[in-house]
Amino acid sequence: MEYRKVKDQDIESPDGRSLSSTAASSTLGDAGGLKGKHSWKQKSIVTVALTLLTSSQAILIVWSKRAGKYEYSVTTANFSVEALKCLLSLVALYRTWNSQGVTEDNRLSTSLDEVSVYPIPAVLYMVKNLLQYYIFAYVDAPAYQILKNLNIISTGVLYRIILKKKLSEIQWAAFILLCAGCTTAQLNPSSDHVLQTPLQGWMMAIVMALLSGFAGVYTEAIIKKRPSRNINVQNFWLYIFGMIFNLVAICVQDFDAVMNKGFFHGYSFITFLMILNHALSGIAVSMVMKYADNIVKVYSTSVAMLLTAIVSVFLFGFHLSLAFFLGSTVVSVSVYLHSVGKPQPQK
Amino acid sequence: MEYRKVKDQDIESPDGRSLSSTAASSTLGDAGGLKGKHSWKQKSIVTVALTLLTSSQAILIVWSKRAGKYEYSVTTANFSVEALKCLLSLVALYRTWNSQGVTEDNRLSTSLDEVSVYPIPAVLYMVKNLLQYYIFAYVDAPAYQILKNLNIISTGVLYRIILKKKLSEIQWAAFILLCAGCTTAQLNPSSDHVLQTPLQGWMMAIVMALLSGFAGVYTEAIIKKRPSRNINVQNFWLYIFGMIFNLVAICVQDFDAVMNKGFFHGYSFITFLMILNHALSGIAVSMVMKYADNIVKVYSTSVAMLLTAIVSVFLFGFHLSLAFFLGSTVVSVSVYLHSVGKPQPQK
Repeated sequence: MEYRKVKDQDIESPDGRSLSSTAASSTLGDAGGLKGKHSWKQKSIVTVALTLLTSSQAILIVWSKRAGKYEYSVTTANFSVEALKCLLSLVALYRTWNSQGVTEDNRLSTSLDEVSVYPIPAVLYMVKNLLQYYIFAYVDAPAYQILKNLNIISTGVLYRIILKKKLSEIQWAAFILLCAGCTTAQLNPSSDHVLQTPLQGWMMAIVMALLSGFAGVYTEAIIKKRPSRNINVQNFWLYIFGMIFNLVAICVQDFDAVMNKGFFHGYSFITFLMILNHALSGIAVSMVMKYADNIVKVYSTSVAMLLTAIVSVFLFGFHLSLAFFLGSTVVSVSVYLHSVGKPQPQK
Repeated sequence: MEYRKVKDQDIESPDGRSLSSTAASSTLGDAGGLKGKHSWKQKSIVTVALTLLTSSQAILIVWSKRAGKYEYSVTTANFSVEALKCLLSLVALYRTWNSQGVTEDNRLSTSLDEVSVYPIPAVLYMVKNLLQYYIFAYVDAPAYQILKNLNIISTGVLYRIILKKKLSEIQWAAFILLCAGCTTAQLNPSSDHVLQTPLQGWMMAIVMALLSGFAGVYTEAIIKKRPSRNINVQNFWLYIFGMIFNLVAICVQDFDAVMNKGFFHGYSFITFLMILNHALSGIAVSMVMKYADNIVKVYSTSVAMLLTAIVSVFLFGFHLSLAFFLGSTVVSVSVYLHSVGKPQPQK
């Protein structure tokens, strides 16, 4: 039985999956069956949506902490997020069926061949989240926040290796800058701790970064494998497995509490807001995977981290450090370089 | 009368002029009269020489502080540096005259028209150094160290405006990164002070950065105005004015002390080493101005700052911070981007 408050580290580096560990992917688009060539407009809209949802996520977490100290079960909240995403996908599908009729691409029924890979991202995230419990034996929470930026590098490397997509040399330079800039923006006087991380801590951090990067890249591969397939069907199956895995987590961790106190014990208005936000963020992540890629996702969540800090100055009176300004400058230059450094026409 | 120890801030960000305020420029090359097109090899040699001399400069300062607490007059040391550079230029010229004979380009005599601009860099540095006394009313020494990185930006901007040389967009991005990276590498827990700098402090820091950048760019303009002119002649005249201005400084600040205790009072072996190092660094700066440019000089001294810190780990047991690693990463990427981001053939 483990009722926990939302963890501190969720505030500083939202990755769109802090509440719902297996909710790596989904989309609720009206354009399920577009072939490959998605418009610049579509890509921009989903990217901006992801950025705004991710930054408001962290702000909701801070707000919920200030509002009071209610406690709710994280596993039930995660399950609710998956269930809500499933529901939203079905609603979108229903509208598509009404307007376009049921086609090969938008029908819900699937083959074992198609659906067999869908649980893999959920399993990867589960392993990563298990490791998360052990890594705190070697590093403290602020150091873990810093180490999480290794995700940026691992995503870039796995994106290159698995999806075989080219980044230009300038885009690689931009990616290294993104990692350095995000880390710099998060520096605080105690950050040097991280340099004392023992080898086991480094190894685990690297393994976790690889698992997380692999899960993201693998989800993109699944979603893009059949470009004409309706994204809401793809999401539905991804979320079904998300629900199953979270149901197992509830049984293992919170079975007694849920039985004794009820499923929604400790939920407040803000908890529901957070669940809604996480569901929409999860769907935005999936849309970015369908219409853009993991690189755009990483940039989007990094910029969201900076936006969160700036908005927090006005909302909560936070102070920005010199390191934050320097890190933001480096991240901004990185975004610029990524856009001007597009590979030459050959791909 | 003002006998001072070498200042703390000289350690962290050597700019090649910490001892000798007016020694902005010189060269002791065997190739005085090359026209414009200087080989890549020549450019590399002077750049590496400047980097190594600048980093050993800071290390000598730390070493001299550890070795004991002798005190010497900074003004007499500055004068000695100028005099030594003058002497070295004359030695190099003498060798040139012996091998090539006296020509229009390598003769020492000059016209008022040619020499009239030579005192200007010296005057600019003098004004900047005067301002340095006043800025400490608004900012403390560590904050001043941080603000000095504005020099990087001012040099880039003035280089563009005055010398009308183009930097590509990627090179501009690299230049912003160089500034952010150097500042990040110097961050320490008290660096946030700099954000409380009052408006007057910011204004003075910006004016000082502009003066320093202008002096550097102006020196490059003087040296490059007549490419065929022997660099040692150009240096000789620059250093003559350096000597004159430092002589004035001795009379104003240290006249009594020099009269009572002697010119070389408080000098040790290491003081002479430092004077030799500063003279050679000054000459290296001039060579970089002749065979490369101010941008190369800025990169060279920035990389020297990082080298100094790394060498200090081994020599003095210094600890490197996470911020240092992040800043170094950003500076390295900046160096890479500067080299790949060369403007297209049109200039």
